[in-house]
Amino acid sequence: MPRDDISAVYRLNVSPAMAAHRAQMLALEQSVEMPLEAVTDRRVLDEVLARVDRIEPQADGTSLARLQLACESVGEDAGQLMNMLFGNCSLQPDVELVDIEVPASLAQAFGGPNLGIDGLRRLTGAVGRPLTCTALKPIGSTVDQLADLCRTFAQAGIDVVKDDHGWANQAGSPFAERVAACQRLVQEANAASGRRTLYAPSLYGTHVQMQRQIELARTHGVGAVLIAPLVCGVATFNALKREHPDLAFIAHPAFGGAARIAPPVLLGKLFRLFGADAVIFPNHGGRFTYPVQTCQDIARNNRAPWHGLHPALPVPAGGMSVERVPEIRREYGVDTMLLIGGSLLIAREKLAERSRAFVEAVAAPDEVAA
Amino acid sequence: MPRDDISAVYRLNVSPAMAAHRAQMLALEQSVEMPLEAVTDRRVLDEVLARVDRIEPQADGTSLARLQLACESVGEDAGQLMNMLFGNCSLQPDVELVDIEVPASLAQAFGGPNLGIDGLRRLTGAVGRPLTCTALKPIGSTVDQLADLCRTFAQAGIDVVKDDHGWANQAGSPFAERVAACQRLVQEANAASGRRTLYAPSLYGTHVQMQRQIELARTHGVGAVLIAPLVCGVATFNALKREHPDLAFIAHPAFGGAARIAPPVLLGKLFRLFGADAVIFPNHGGRFTYPVQTCQDIARNNRAPWHGLHPALPVPAGGMSVERVPEIRREYGVDTMLLIGGSLLIAREKLAERSRAFVEAVAAPDEVAA
Repeated sequence: MPRDDISAVYRLNVSPAMAAHRAQMLALEQSVEMPLEAVTDRRVLDEVLARVDRIEPQADGTSLARLQLACESVGEDAGQLMNMLFGNCSLQPDVELVDIEVPASLAQAFGGPNLGIDGLRRLTGAVGRPLTCTALKPIGSTVDQLADLCRTFAQAGIDVVKDDHGWANQAGSPFAERVAACQRLVQEANAASGRRTLYAPSLYGTHVQMQRQIELARTHGVGAVLIAPLVCGVATFNALKREHPDLAFIAHPAFGGAARIAPPVLLGKLFRLFGADAVIFPNHGGRFTYPVQTCQDIARNNRAPWHGLHPALPVPAGGMSVERVPEIRREYGVDTMLLIGGSLLIAREKLAERSRAFVEAVAAPDEVAA
Repeated sequence: MPRDDISAVYRLNVSPAMAAHRAQMLALEQSVEMPLEAVTDRRVLDEVLARVDRIEPQADGTSLARLQLACESVGEDAGQLMNMLFGNCSLQPDVELVDIEVPASLAQAFGGPNLGIDGLRRLTGAVGRPLTCTALKPIGSTVDQLADLCRTFAQAGIDVVKDDHGWANQAGSPFAERVAACQRLVQEANAASGRRTLYAPSLYGTHVQMQRQIELARTHGVGAVLIAPLVCGVATFNALKREHPDLAFIAHPAFGGAARIAPPVLLGKLFRLFGADAVIFPNHGGRFTYPVQTCQDIARNNRAPWHGLHPALPVPAGGMSVERVPEIRREYGVDTMLLIGGSLLIAREKLAERSRAFVEAVAAPDEVAA
């Protein structure tokens, strides 16, 4: 009888002759974590032990090994899924996680995005074009400075104004004051313009702390939050998402490591699985070095049909500029959110002008990708 | 006026001619996260912007850059410390974090181990020798099978019997039943032997869930827990540690990645800083590939004087065997906990005998390192 398994593909950086043995060791490591001959229980061997499904030698000398991991070993806990996929073997430099597939039951258990692309369009009123996003920088600013930025960005018509991911509860700009002031200025600008800019504060700390932060933010009318799932833990992220089914979650890739988990898996599948409505990722040609294909795979995975989960908005970021908007729009199409941070702020006294230029460049109809 | 800074040393895998520029970019990335010319506030430039303190070209062509990060940017949140140390730059493959130093104020804020080495010795009664530890495997076992293992291990006199880190709340062996049964059998064996074996269940999920797990475990008399700080998030780990100042926390390295944060920093300093009383790490010569020097640095950092924090017990693990006990003991000395898991279980019907052999090998007085 076939098991209802999680499928995980690993790249093994070992010689092809060693690949089968290495894959079998990996199957033990990522399930029973003991020598096969020490397992005495037939049921564990049949139903819990990970299985090597297939090994494919690659042109570059590595091998791809597909393993089947028993859902039973995860128990519907997001942290435990990461643990079984890449907990111990993250410590082994010859292994990378390059793809995953989960059964529909597990996808439903984690639930994916609350709102997804359509929901974010409803919240912001942004239709038929990419969404725009910017960040409140730098940390060290006062609440008043950030609130001023909020007003400028909202007046310019930017769809989502998010805290920089460096914001926590720093003494100079405590969470409670920052959120109250930023949300108020955004709402005032919305009331004047008839638009629906969203402000997304950055969550910090633990599940308990984040529950309080969300409660507080909601009393001010906040409808979206920024969260770094690998800093707070994916279980915390997934729990909050389920506790607040009407809230939009924008996921930040901080602490995601470089390439040990292939970015299209981590930022394209896992973040969405656990509940990201929008996923920020380092676009090529900026301060980060992801190749073009990696970026496109991240975007594709976030939007692809997947067990009925809402698609999530890919958010190319990391050193983007207004000048690159037409290129990014052509590359990613309309179901995208463009995030420009520092490159707006560099305009200094011309910030409002440059923010409007960003909004207009994204909306320009003749540039919309086919 | 000198700032009360966090000091972080990064290895830059760029040409020596580029090192100064790269270090400056890194300082921006890990603090204000925007171009320098966009920062308009003098105070932010003076007090928040990370500074490049020193750059040292290395013989291997890389450079070591020491950066000073403002404590203000962390705000006493453990997740935020990880974020500022390695959040965004974890996504940049040319950077590794190779050392950190924190001011005494931050060390006091996080607090370090509750009990430390002396406290674990008091709890277990293990004096003048290394401690012994084993793990309940494999996942998929029933509660009765695990409870049987607990009795055997406790009767053999092993100091700490911990859940494998793959245990969460799997349907076949739910947390509540597992913990009740395992703790009961350990206590019965202790009552008969007069010894004080500790059972440490594995925590899973979020801060909220872990609070409940600890509460439940404590009603049964549990005095130690196993936690994977990089799976649950370091803020969750640090919060629980502070909420339960009499509980011992054994930290598991799962999801720690390979070498992007140097293991002596992650497993030698950061885990201890956030509250690990004992730190499990992959010893050389087992299933993992850390070099000898890395392992010794992990052990040294866990035990070195550091702002008055308790020292933590290094726990070399990952494919260790009874045969290697004399070697491991010579290498690590008495202030160590030896963890042998699968290599005990492989004895199958001779498990009790082999467990006693482990305990005796560790206690053998003529083998104690000078």
